[in-house]
Amino acid sequence: MPPPSNRLCVHTATTKPWSLDECFAEYPKQGVSGISIWRQTLEGRVLADVQRQAIDAGLQVVSLCRGGFFPALSQTARQAAIDDNRLAIEQAQTIGAPVVVLVCGAVPGQSLQESRKQIADGIAAVLPVAQQAGVKLAIEPLHPMYCDDRSAVNTMKQANAICDALGSPSHLGIALDVYHVWWDPDLQEQIAIAGRADRLTAFHICDWKTPTTDLLNDRGLMGEGCIPIQQINQWMEQAGFTGFREVEIFSNQWWALDQREFLKRIQASYIDHFG
Amino acid sequence: MPPPSNRLCVHTATTKPWSLDECFAEYPKQGVSGISIWRQTLEGRVLADVQRQAIDAGLQVVSLCRGGFFPALSQTARQAAIDDNRLAIEQAQTIGAPVVVLVCGAVPGQSLQESRKQIADGIAAVLPVAQQAGVKLAIEPLHPMYCDDRSAVNTMKQANAICDALGSPSHLGIALDVYHVWWDPDLQEQIAIAGRADRLTAFHICDWKTPTTDLLNDRGLMGEGCIPIQQINQWMEQAGFTGFREVEIFSNQWWALDQREFLKRIQASYIDHFG
Repeated sequence: MPPPSNRLCVHTATTKPWSLDECFAEYPKQGVSGISIWRQTLEGRVLADVQRQAIDAGLQVVSLCRGGFFPALSQTARQAAIDDNRLAIEQAQTIGAPVVVLVCGAVPGQSLQESRKQIADGIAAVLPVAQQAGVKLAIEPLHPMYCDDRSAVNTMKQANAICDALGSPSHLGIALDVYHVWWDPDLQEQIAIAGRADRLTAFHICDWKTPTTDLLNDRGLMGEGCIPIQQINQWMEQAGFTGFREVEIFSNQWWALDQREFLKRIQASYIDHFG
Repeated sequence: MPPPSNRLCVHTATTKPWSLDECFAEYPKQGVSGISIWRQTLEGRVLADVQRQAIDAGLQVVSLCRGGFFPALSQTARQAAIDDNRLAIEQAQTIGAPVVVLVCGAVPGQSLQESRKQIADGIAAVLPVAQQAGVKLAIEPLHPMYCDDRSAVNTMKQANAICDALGSPSHLGIALDVYHVWWDPDLQEQIAIAGRADRLTAFHICDWKTPTTDLLNDRGLMGEGCIPIQQINQWMEQAGFTGFREVEIFSNQWWALDQREFLKRIQASYIDHFG
């Protein structure tokens, strides 16, 4: 299903204080047409009802966040990760999410080379499940500051290389988050490569604040920082991407405010950037 | 002058609470044989006396930190940066430091492409001064999390490219800090390239803690984190590097403790890693 013309999606983690019901009720009031659902917000719900509830609210389910975290020190733990990814794919299928975003994982003290190998192996293990379910997996390169314990995949080039190594399967793509990759001198080139291989599966936006005071939860609203969001958006479009632009902002500061006010600011900033 | 066999150097910023005189007095007691001097610690001193004081203390001056910060929004500010780098080179010559480390700079909101161009232009402008003074400039790639306002040069590959673009001059090299580059999948290859071009000028060590709670001042003592320091050291040696290993730890936690105790821990950790 193609996105509505404004292509504005919000992640439930962006409005973390809200329940999924509150997201369903509030997002459409501010012109949001897509929702990316974090697994935590599904706890305690009847999954089979979620897609209908989203449609009734006027929202398209864009992705489920998140699978991944494949590397681990023991075979048992790696198998548990694979099992959890199978579950995530089932959940995505049930709620009608066409994509599961993969935060690939890393283990402090295990070499990045080994973690990268375990990531490729883990993805290979769950790809048949994804294909069977009609769900696409999207490798999200994470900023190098997260390579100790969140992801050993830190550039678009690495994500492209994993897709290549696995034979460029149709159910494997890449989720580009401007926060993680904006610094990369190879970014434009690697977006173009991903586009030619039809891998551009998701596009996350937010901003990088100066100074950034917390490694995890001090992301900025678009316009608060220095990421060339419109430039990267242009590169994505030139590479053929036509999907949602997903607002994913982890911010202690924004979470502390009234979330309706925050959502209004998101809409205004989005219109500023994309009309 | 080749370094003594233990090759242990400490940056004055590592023991930030100490004056330069305290560094001179305390470093040799813990087996430190080299000192890298931060410009702040030179304030109020007669520069012409510093080299003699270091030699009398039994310390070799390894580098002066830091020059760089070339990009700026106005031509006037860029010229001021060039003038400051000329001054840093003069200071290095006066205190007998063979190297000035360059933290290249960046301007939030100015494109990284433009900042990178201004960095190359700035280095080109001061290279003749460095050559005249017999001082080597060392480009230090900084972690991508600092590309907003500290350096638009974030990988060894970029540093090698700048050296290439400027004609690989003999007075331009690279300072590798494990903290900034350990995540890079191209690291081994780019170290080898730099080695073949005789560019490996400085080697900074510390560790990456999980979790890291501050973007600037939460570096770890070697062994406290997950950087494969010995692996990177091996790559450096295979590439021909024989210089000092410089301990550069910015840490609110370590600065809050007794600095003699900290220095003992540095020595113990260094011996653990390098014998």
